[in-house]
Amino acid sequence: MGLLKDYKGPEDLKGLNIKQLNSLAQDVREYIIDTVSKNGGHLASNLGAVEITLALLKVFDFKKDNIVFDVGHQSYVYKILTDRKEEFKNLRKYKGISGFPRTFESEYDCFNAGHAGTAISAAYAMAEVNRKENNKNFSVAFVGDASLCNGLSFEGLNNAGQNKSRLLVVLNDNEMSIKENVGSVSNYLNNLRITPAYTKLKENIKHYTTKIPVLGKPVSKFSSAVKYGVKKLLITSGIMFENFGFKYIGPIDGHDTDLLIKILSRIKEMECPVLLHIVTKKGKGYEFAEKTPELYHGLGSFDKTKPVISAANVKSPSYIAGQKLLSLAEKDENIIAVCAAMEDGCGLSDFHKKLPERFYDVGISEGHAVTFGAGLAAKGKIPVIAIYSTFMQRAYDNIIHDMAISNLHAVLLLDRAGISGEDGETHHGIFDINFLNTIPNVTIFTPSNKAELEDAIEKAIYETDGIVAVRYSKGNFEDGEKTDLLNGKLVKEGNKATVVTYSKMTEVIKKRNLDADHIHLNCVSHIDYESIIKSLEKTKHLVVAEDSIKNGGIGEKICAYLAQKGISVKAKVFAIENRFVPHGSVDELFKDCGIDGETIERYINETEA
Amino acid sequence: MGLLKDYKGPEDLKGLNIKQLNSLAQDVREYIIDTVSKNGGHLASNLGAVEITLALLKVFDFKKDNIVFDVGHQSYVYKILTDRKEEFKNLRKYKGISGFPRTFESEYDCFNAGHAGTAISAAYAMAEVNRKENNKNFSVAFVGDASLCNGLSFEGLNNAGQNKSRLLVVLNDNEMSIKENVGSVSNYLNNLRITPAYTKLKENIKHYTTKIPVLGKPVSKFSSAVKYGVKKLLITSGIMFENFGFKYIGPIDGHDTDLLIKILSRIKEMECPVLLHIVTKKGKGYEFAEKTPELYHGLGSFDKTKPVISAANVKSPSYIAGQKLLSLAEKDENIIAVCAAMEDGCGLSDFHKKLPERFYDVGISEGHAVTFGAGLAAKGKIPVIAIYSTFMQRAYDNIIHDMAISNLHAVLLLDRAGISGEDGETHHGIFDINFLNTIPNVTIFTPSNKAELEDAIEKAIYETDGIVAVRYSKGNFEDGEKTDLLNGKLVKEGNKATVVTYSKMTEVIKKRNLDADHIHLNCVSHIDYESIIKSLEKTKHLVVAEDSIKNGGIGEKICAYLAQKGISVKAKVFAIENRFVPHGSVDELFKDCGIDGETIERYINETEA
Repeated sequence: MGLLKDYKGPEDLKGLNIKQLNSLAQDVREYIIDTVSKNGGHLASNLGAVEITLALLKVFDFKKDNIVFDVGHQSYVYKILTDRKEEFKNLRKYKGISGFPRTFESEYDCFNAGHAGTAISAAYAMAEVNRKENNKNFSVAFVGDASLCNGLSFEGLNNAGQNKSRLLVVLNDNEMSIKENVGSVSNYLNNLRITPAYTKLKENIKHYTTKIPVLGKPVSKFSSAVKYGVKKLLITSGIMFENFGFKYIGPIDGHDTDLLIKILSRIKEMECPVLLHIVTKKGKGYEFAEKTPELYHGLGSFDKTKPVISAANVKSPSYIAGQKLLSLAEKDENIIAVCAAMEDGCGLSDFHKKLPERFYDVGISEGHAVTFGAGLAAKGKIPVIAIYSTFMQRAYDNIIHDMAISNLHAVLLLDRAGISGEDGETHHGIFDINFLNTIPNVTIFTPSNKAELEDAIEKAIYETDGIVAVRYSKGNFEDGEKTDLLNGKLVKEGNKATVVTYSKMTEVIKKRNLDADHIHLNCVSHIDYESIIKSLEKTKHLVVAEDSIKNGGIGEKICAYLAQKGISVKAKVFAIENRFVPHGSVDELFKDCGIDGETIERYINETEA
Repeated sequence: MGLLKDYKGPEDLKGLNIKQLNSLAQDVREYIIDTVSKNGGHLASNLGAVEITLALLKVFDFKKDNIVFDVGHQSYVYKILTDRKEEFKNLRKYKGISGFPRTFESEYDCFNAGHAGTAISAAYAMAEVNRKENNKNFSVAFVGDASLCNGLSFEGLNNAGQNKSRLLVVLNDNEMSIKENVGSVSNYLNNLRITPAYTKLKENIKHYTTKIPVLGKPVSKFSSAVKYGVKKLLITSGIMFENFGFKYIGPIDGHDTDLLIKILSRIKEMECPVLLHIVTKKGKGYEFAEKTPELYHGLGSFDKTKPVISAANVKSPSYIAGQKLLSLAEKDENIIAVCAAMEDGCGLSDFHKKLPERFYDVGISEGHAVTFGAGLAAKGKIPVIAIYSTFMQRAYDNIIHDMAISNLHAVLLLDRAGISGEDGETHHGIFDINFLNTIPNVTIFTPSNKAELEDAIEKAIYETDGIVAVRYSKGNFEDGEKTDLLNGKLVKEGNKATVVTYSKMTEVIKKRNLDADHIHLNCVSHIDYESIIKSLEKTKHLVVAEDSIKNGGIGEKICAYLAQKGISVKAKVFAIENRFVPHGSVDELFKDCGIDGETIERYINETEA
């Protein structure tokens, strides 16, 4: 930790030579490995982004210029080297710093991120504002190759090349996103990578760049040089990006700090949109992560002296769902699984391995995943589309327009629903119940244990019409027992209230010793009002507890129903109020939101109906 | 109407020669002009699609093969020539046939449409099912050039070129979408169009194709011919599409029926994804529409013997909103207008003309429009993003992830909100209140007249934090008076009920002579419960009437609030139940949904609190 120890901020980079910068890079790597091994987080992607981040910070001034990270899996180095070196120790901890760009954390973060594909659109807007204000500031979008297949990236590219604004898209191509890249854009990048130009590029560029003085050359001269000289060398075959109106430069070695600094310095003098294509290695500098980067994408704490081992958590709802789906699909060739870049996360690795012909990973293209599923359903197949709850928000219109209007039969597996923990604001699945509730022809199952989840998936496929969403949270599922899908399950009897829950919240309440009727809803789109009303005749006190947003949620729905039926009882809804939820452990965040078991128990004990 | 008169169905096309087909094309054109001049509808786009539709129907069998129309502005010819020749007279009429593809209308329609970008994803899925089932059926996506800039189209293209399924994307390039195409893809198509190959193409291809016998050639031979022979001729420079794994053929004259039939017959023998790029003329065959196709995109009834004249409806909320925005922007250079291909529809033509540097039409890219707006807001600008309510559904996650989490200040103008009439299921803006209600940091204004709308826009820009949506319906706005934004306006006093309304529904209720308190909510995100409760103390009877979906709507919200406050009154919500709404006049559809003034009046008169 030699150089990093005394590091104060980006100004310090000015005085460092290449050798020192490379030494600093090593310090940063060690610090990241050390911290992530304790706190968990995204490792391999960040280790790949050390040199390019150093180079960007040396060349640009991100108090004036701006950098928009796409997703943000590659922002750790930036956080450490701007102004969060010490705070980084509390990465992903409750009240500590976030694992993603957060504007409320630092003035260096100019745009929040977590979902893919947003950086080009946002950075282009910022570049346009700079152009209008006639300043020379640069706007940088830092984009991983996996994000490029997202439609939003494309919409951004399609617009951003139109004007002569100072926009730099750094395409950090690590040849693999979470597991593997899919689609034509990925193939296209593969082809660029194997051009002879790339293999010989490094020394040629060094030779070339050293011949041009760093300062003093007018912009037009350099542009011209790029056009007639470097172009043949650097701009090998990036026709796709040139078609979008970008100057394409690359591919170049994203771990060569010296080269990166030289090229970025040139780009800084240009007055047009530039796409810089760098090739990096995921997990760079940490042997275990270089070997199996997919195991070091997002992970919990680990022993950094040993390789982590891939072991499915057989209690995780994702694993249970994936295995159940596989067992059904092995008997029914109409079942087709679709996921959007989260094969492992959604527990579908075994499905992919055993039934590859009926498995589609469409990449980070959630909208397409749903519309593609709708096409399958229109031809009589049974698509089962597994997407994290937070990312399913991106397919809201696809669910309405391509599935629900036609009343097609399709199953949506909503993984990581509710409060999902350390990833924070951008990753909690707290809107799913609410937005799905607005759509006709949607059934929403909300199992709370393994038996219920397995049963829900089977009945979603075979005994339910239209769109059927099955919602489950992170964490472990106990075995439990099946519950009648459409009838509430009276988990426990008592007197002081009728407590209604679903999904994970059912377990939260089960653990408390409440003197209350506790009804678990296994289906929240078709609420079992009969059981609720029957219980309320006794208790006269309704308590709904949910790990989802309050507005337009199930608590409000039940209250509205009772009001319209003229049934008057004391009513209280525990849900996430009109706000976003930060990062931390799930337990801490439940408390933060006031929906933890203790708070609810206290309320019930202290309140008379 | 010679040939069309006796036309029974696609089988009839088999026996017709080119001369007869062209004569039939003329009949179809006249029939469409005649019908649209009476019923209104989409004219120019459909007139451009006559020959290609004839050719597709002659070559393919769309009871086995399938065709997925993107958007569906080009499906009239198909409807007439499959099985809806007579019914076409009732185009867009209540209970008549729809102006868009509808699966419940005919077995020939395999996928519903209305929003852009969905066809490639859906058709690809269908092609994959055919491949798995090992049949020779073809799956066709019929896509206009404007849809290509939508991210969903890109996500579809990115995946669809991966497998050797029989997928044909017909790119109907009419050089202009609703007004003009924007972005790089549009430029790219422009470049393809001006290649010398295109100008000389027609005769060359004719020469070439006549040399190959139509039948009997094995597929591999033709593929090979395409590769080495026709390729140079046909596949001129479609590198972008070739990169996506498609065979690119084009551009060719989309009004040459003979040529189209020959090329489609060849494509039918191929076993890989093909993109056929045809160039057509919007409004083809109808002089007035050829001259000013933008005036013949979507229109009401007109005199077909005279050119229609562009005249802004100064009473339309779109016009009022556009003018108000312009007047504010002329005094404040921080205001930037963004729209997604609906410049005229959103009343922004004058804004574009007078302040072009602060006007962005991003094309049919709603997600990008919002994220781009977020980028502007992050740099301190005030983006005002005008998008039809139904299309704003596509930006749900962009609103959450890119704006709301950061609590950025941006204004969303939701045009065509509520029940929008003749376009039907896919175009009503009945989800906006509901999905926006789920998002923290969103304020929703719901003006009911001109004064309220103008005031809402000004206060949205200058006196409100966070995201501010201003929602207004189609139809005319009376001048009216300003209403305090956050306090309900007591429109009328009475005894039998407290009727709460917003947006257009306020006018609907105002027209009835109700013995009831009538409260108009000018803001539905911050409901004026005080006024409602005060009135309820008198009436003991709550009636909420809304032109939006009931689930998660304002009626439920008010009922839930009262229940949690322990206030017990008779409560009834008139809103769109858990269903989709067909096409017809707005009045007919209000009745269809049971939310018309007469029904509500009858309920109030007949019901005792």
